[in-house]
Parts: sequence; structure tokens; C-alpha cells
Amino acid sequence: MSAAIAGGCLIGVGVGPGDPELMTLKAARALGEADVVAYFAKRGKDSHARAIAQAHFRAGALELPLDYPVTTELHRHDEGYRSQITGFYDDSARLVAGHLDAGRKVAVLSEGDPLFYGSYMHLHVRLAARYPTEVIPGVTGMSGCWSQAGTPIAQGDDVLSVLPGTLEEAELARRLAAADAAVIMKVGRNLPKIRRALETAGRLDRALYVERGTMAGGGAMPLAARGGEAAPYFAIVLVPGWQLRAGADE
Amino acid sequence: MSAAIAGGCLIGVGVGPGDPELMTLKAARALGEADVVAYFAKRGKDSHARAIAQAHFRAGALELPLDYPVTTELHRHDEGYRSQITGFYDDSARLVAGHLDAGRKVAVLSEGDPLFYGSYMHLHVRLAARYPTEVIPGVTGMSGCWSQAGTPIAQGDDVLSVLPGTLEEAELARRLAAADAAVIMKVGRNLPKIRRALETAGRLDRALYVERGTMAGGGAMPLAARGGEAAPYFAIVLVPGWQLRAGADE
Repeated sequence: MSAAIAGGCLIGVGVGPGDPELMTLKAARALGEADVVAYFAKRGKDSHARAIAQAHFRAGALELPLDYPVTTELHRHDEGYRSQITGFYDDSARLVAGHLDAGRKVAVLSEGDPLFYGSYMHLHVRLAARYPTEVIPGVTGMSGCWSQAGTPIAQGDDVLSVLPGTLEEAELARRLAAADAAVIMKVGRNLPKIRRALETAGRLDRALYVERGTMAGGGAMPLAARGGEAAPYFAIVLVPGWQLRAGADE
Repeated sequence: MSAAIAGGCLIGVGVGPGDPELMTLKAARALGEADVVAYFAKRGKDSHARAIAQAHFRAGALELPLDYPVTTELHRHDEGYRSQITGFYDDSARLVAGHLDAGRKVAVLSEGDPLFYGSYMHLHVRLAARYPTEVIPGVTGMSGCWSQAGTPIAQGDDVLSVLPGTLEEAELARRLAAADAAVIMKVGRNLPKIRRALETAGRLDRALYVERGTMAGGGAMPLAARGGEAAPYFAIVLVPGWQLRAGADE
């Protein structure tokens, strides 16, 4: 645990939901000042966060791609998967720490917001106690989705629940019935189950399916109007609250 | 219901959580192009959204302050309050529509994100079907708060609940116990009740109190360490999920 040379600092940078213009002014400035830009990616695939933010990298900045180990053959609750992914985050933190120890400013890109379901936090918990650290919040993917759909999601005394589509069907249905508004993430192959849970909860007619939020080719449609086939992992289902509540101002 | 002259369009602009640098590039551009900038404010008080965004207004842009009627003497579930506030939103929409009909580009400022508990949506539901409309998402106040606190809020399969502090104590406690992570908004004079609900739910030791998110003089502290006195309305309480879950990667 070496002391950092003056100047080394870690910056978690939220790059927003996809449209490069939805980066913040602060994120753009931080990238223009960073000596090193790190980002997570699947091996052999381009980093989506990098594509969003690239125009703001300082000329001559080092890039540090952090490639996830190939893990599709293991279930994520499997012990082997857990130790492999933990080792990967440990190794990634060591790579970043090397640059911090050399006095460099390291920006770690994060789609959406760094501390909201983002991979950056695996570095944050390993490094923030040892190095000067700043987190620049970003527009989340879900904000991008409901804005593109033009759908007010929650107002007043609404309870909003953010639910992973990986939950069991009965659990999902119970939570959907209890919330005024909901966002379901990690849709992908969970879509048929999510659809059934929405039906059980009496919310299917309010649900919107949104694909590729603020990106080119993105769009929203009523989930009930969509076929049952699996969806991209990053698709989102929105159940707006407010609009249909009794007494809502409309 | 007159037809708009070519060029009239409505833009809901999220200006982010407080730090002017946390506006998006797109919001800054939209403000530079707007003919009219509208914002909600309490009568006799400056608009906070205006203060955040003002540096980007086009020279010569018209400003349209929309002053809430004085309503503190009425409870918000009171019929008189409801009709007064509905009338106010109707009048505001008519004022904005007048500019849209004249072919002007009208930006409506919103702290945080326009469609996430924002006043903008009261104009949106009245005008979006009649005029070209765009919503520019923003960084929410809650993202600003957990970023400033440096606290990962949710990860993996966490369920995150956004709860208004106005809920009944028992209801609040039940929902807090059922969520992995929670954000409690509308804290203000509800703080003592929120504290009791967190204690009942066994979550008080994890709860963080955050005041003035990303603004000057803002800060975070464990809620348990704070005195019981009432807080500002815009203070937020965070209950981080992930970090303390069994099996979390740390």
C-alpha cells in the first residue's frame, strides 16, 4: 500500500445513457484533464462507454481497457464465477492503483451513473479509501428511457421501485403490485417472465418497453403490443406511476 | 386550440442536482437556442433551477417565471388546494402555449430530471400532444447525493425503492425492510418519523443523511449521528444496498 505521488486521483465518470450530448459539462472537463482513461468491456467487444465519451479524451491520454474474463459458461451464483470475477476486479484495481501511484489522474468511465448499478463501484470500494477520489454523477439509463418515451414516471407521493428482471416471477409480481411506479432492468431473456408478472400484478396495460434508450434506432412501445421474444439485456420496462393514479393532476 | 406556427417547440430541460457543471451538454445547447426560458418558483423566492442554468441563456431570451400560488395555509390533500394548484398549472400551460403558438422555442427548466418527481410534467401532460416536444433528461438529486457521499447505492440484483418521507410510519418501515436499498425524499419535518421507521426496519445504522447534494455547503453524515431536529425539505436519506449484502464483492 504505497503512498500516492501528489496529483494521483481517481475519478468515476458517469457518461450518461447513450447520447454523447447527455454527458455532463463536468464529465467532459474531467476527461479532458485525465492522464489515463479506463473502461470495462467484454473481451473482443468495443466499450460502449468509450464510444460515448471518446471525443473528450485529452490528446495523448493513455487508455486502459479492463476486459471481463469470459464467463458465459458459468452461472453468476457459481463459486467459480464469483472467485474469477472477484480476482478480475482485484487485478483491475491494481492496474489503476499503479497509475495513481505514479501521480496520474485516472478517469474510469461508467455508462449511466457510476454508483447506480455500475461496474465502477468495484474499483471505488477497493481504492477510494487510499486515494483522492471524486465521483461525477451521470444521467441514468432509466432517465434516458422515460425521457425518450415522453412518459412522466413518478410524481408527488409515488413510490418508485427499481427491480431487476432476474427476480423470481412471484416476487416480481408482488413488488410490482406494491409500487406506484416501477422500472425493470436486466430485461433480456427475462422478458416473458416479466410479462407474466406484470399481468399477475394487473400492470401489463400500463407497461412500456424501451430499447436502446437515447441511442440511434431506439424507441418505446407498449409492452402488450410487443411479441414475446427475448429482448436485449439493456432494454428496460417502465411502469409509469402518477398518470393513472386517482386524483392525479391531469 | 390553435395550430403552432412552424418552429414552436417545447423542451423540458433537466438542469441536474445543483452544481452548474452537472448540466448536460445537450441542456446547455438547448438553453443557448431557446427563445423563452420558463421556470417554476415560489412567489418572492428566486428559482433555484434558474440560478443553476442562467449562464447558458441566450442573450435576449425572454424569461417566464411561473410563480406558485401561496398555499402553505392549505393542506395538499385539501380540495381547495387541489383546485388552486390545478388552476395554476392550467394557467401556466396557457402562458407557455401562447409562446409556442407564436413559433417560439420554449425551454422549461427542471431541477434534477424533468419526468422524475418534477413540476415540468404538469406542463408536459397538458402540451406534449399538441406541440413538438422534447425532454432532455438530467442528473437526479439522488444521484448527486450518493455521488457526493461516495456511496455505491445499488448493484447486481438489488431492489431499490424511492420512498416519499410523507408515507405513514408503519408503511415506511415495511417498505424499508423489504428493499435492499432505499432513497427517502421529502425529508424536511418528516425526519423524526423517518428515523423511527428506519429503526423499526433495522436499517438506521446504514442510513446516510445528505443535505444540499452537490451544492456549496453540502455534505453527508450517518443519520444516527445527526440530532433529531427537522431538516430542509430537499434533504435526502440514503440506505445503501449492496455493500452490506451477503456475498457482495468487496
